[in-house]
Amino acid sequence: MWMNQIPGPAIERLLHLLRFLERLDVQFITSSEIEDYTGWSSATVRKDISYLEGISAGTAGYEVGRLKEVIRETLGLTEGRRICIVGLGRLGSAFLNFTGFEQEGFHLVAGFDSSVNRIEILRSPVPLYPTYKMAEVISRFQIELALLCVPASEAQRSAEKLVAAGIRGILNFAPVVLTVPPTVAVENLYVVDGLRALAARLSSKKGTEPGIPGKNE
Amino acid sequence: MWMNQIPGPAIERLLHLLRFLERLDVQFITSSEIEDYTGWSSATVRKDISYLEGISAGTAGYEVGRLKEVIRETLGLTEGRRICIVGLGRLGSAFLNFTGFEQEGFHLVAGFDSSVNRIEILRSPVPLYPTYKMAEVISRFQIELALLCVPASEAQRSAEKLVAAGIRGILNFAPVVLTVPPTVAVENLYVVDGLRALAARLSSKKGTEPGIPGKNE
Repeated sequence: MWMNQIPGPAIERLLHLLRFLERLDVQFITSSEIEDYTGWSSATVRKDISYLEGISAGTAGYEVGRLKEVIRETLGLTEGRRICIVGLGRLGSAFLNFTGFEQEGFHLVAGFDSSVNRIEILRSPVPLYPTYKMAEVISRFQIELALLCVPASEAQRSAEKLVAAGIRGILNFAPVVLTVPPTVAVENLYVVDGLRALAARLSSKKGTEPGIPGKNE
Repeated sequence: MWMNQIPGPAIERLLHLLRFLERLDVQFITSSEIEDYTGWSSATVRKDISYLEGISAGTAGYEVGRLKEVIRETLGLTEGRRICIVGLGRLGSAFLNFTGFEQEGFHLVAGFDSSVNRIEILRSPVPLYPTYKMAEVISRFQIELALLCVPASEAQRSAEKLVAAGIRGILNFAPVVLTVPPTVAVENLYVVDGLRALAARLSSKKGTEPGIPGKNE
């Protein structure tokens, strides 16, 4: 099974399942146990896992160590990709010292900011560069992914610079829908979007949960 | 059309469309213009918009101001929900000073941390409380949503305290799949999960983009 034949929603669930299994301290797990934890039906779980080569359930269920390994391999998470941070304000500079990237095979190798002053002042475990060096640095270090942490008003322009510099994927923290070529992947992580998604889900439960006090006017 | 009859993926796209329209400075937009920007087919766009009451396209397209208003109303984003932050480390304390919540109708009214010392030291525009007061404060201020910013090892336990305190939705920043009752909504925003999703999408493009140099061993 080629990775590019796995449907998008199944890829999302497999990523979620991987994160779940990584925090679970058991040797075997069944699809109905996964259903209990995640809320996906065990049929969906079995279908998703069927996209993975060489995985089948024994009488005790799936072998968790092997399942994690094959998900990582199939989804291309074992390749050690290089990443950079663009925009070193409050959020971007907090990520400079974040240790979670390296643990999961993402190597933070550069930070960029348009303010030369800020670059000189910030203490950072990785080299910082002015934005005008972006194309040169991304190419030299073969950086594939960028965390885009600039203000909303600059996000589209920065994204275009990243695309011109050859970036392959952008993790966007700004409240902006970026327009990029289809060859460049974008994921959005704006905190208020997460709150909005929660609010929408609360509203959608109104009709089915009339018992929640004070919420069904 | 009741909100709870709109399919989940359509809700997600409508939230994304809203964010897009909010950054766009035009009075009218057609479904094919939306397709150009977002990559969703114009048929999908029209279908999603058909879930909204009182919205139809004129010859110039949809009226953007009205479309934004109806999306916000339909998805329950106009209700002014109260939120809190749980865990005031680097990430949680950065959110204490974030101005984007209020702009979009989310009122940050409390922060919690298990360290009384940290609560005393932190400068904050909103009141901070020790974790043992969580149930009392959430109930008193009718807090509906929580940003969960504690370390991974504490996330499940903190989530359970929030559920017991009557929280209705959790925005989870920890690399943990939370187990909560189905009446409580959870959205996950762990930064490395975003990078993993990008990496998986790059891998899935391998088969269809053999021309990308150095990436198709």
